[in-house]
Amino acid sequence: MLNYSPELDGLYAALADGSRRAMVERLSRGPASVKELAAPLTMSLPAVLQHLRVLEDSGLVRSQKVGRVRTCRLESAALQQAEQWIADRRSRWADRLDRLETFLEEED
Amino acid sequence: MLNYSPELDGLYAALADGSRRAMVERLSRGPASVKELAAPLTMSLPAVLQHLRVLEDSGLVRSQKVGRVRTCRLESAALQQAEQWIADRRSRWADRLDRLETFLEEED
Repeated sequence: MLNYSPELDGLYAALADGSRRAMVERLSRGPASVKELAAPLTMSLPAVLQHLRVLEDSGLVRSQKVGRVRTCRLESAALQQAEQWIADRRSRWADRLDRLETFLEEED
Repeated sequence: MLNYSPELDGLYAALADGSRRAMVERLSRGPASVKELAAPLTMSLPAVLQHLRVLEDSGLVRSQKVGRVRTCRLESAALQQAEQWIADRRSRWADRLDRLETFLEEED
């Protein structure tokens, strides 16, 4: 996966805020209306909608309006993309440490 | 893991930039001097140092100066923390889908 990716920029920027992470956390337990998303947050509805917009722009959340209710759901693929970039770098680093350890053992 | 965490804010904000991800990528292959980190990047040394500062403040990178050379290395634990928060939410979401599927099969 490339390092220079506007998608990854957007995903990590979206996750770099506690209120947005609280919204992602809520949605990991199932779809929710905007009202349900806003309930535990101590902020105005416009502020919630602004955070929701950032989450939708990043691809982490998708919403659909039916009648007067907008229902939000998590986009698992976007979450996986954000996880995978980190996981790949971490496993490369761990592999390197393993090889270093093996090398040092063989030197003994 | 709590959603409201200045640590997580800092980790994801640090990862929300392609140049910083390129530096993390380089360091996942092993420690590097600032000069080595800067070499593939098309930016001034002060700009590189500014990005390095963000990475160090987030805890993702640690550096040590010996003589005239500052060597940077990846902090695997910080990378794991950033990965884990996402992984936990994603697996909760996946579990929910599995339970939903089982429920629907039993209904048939």
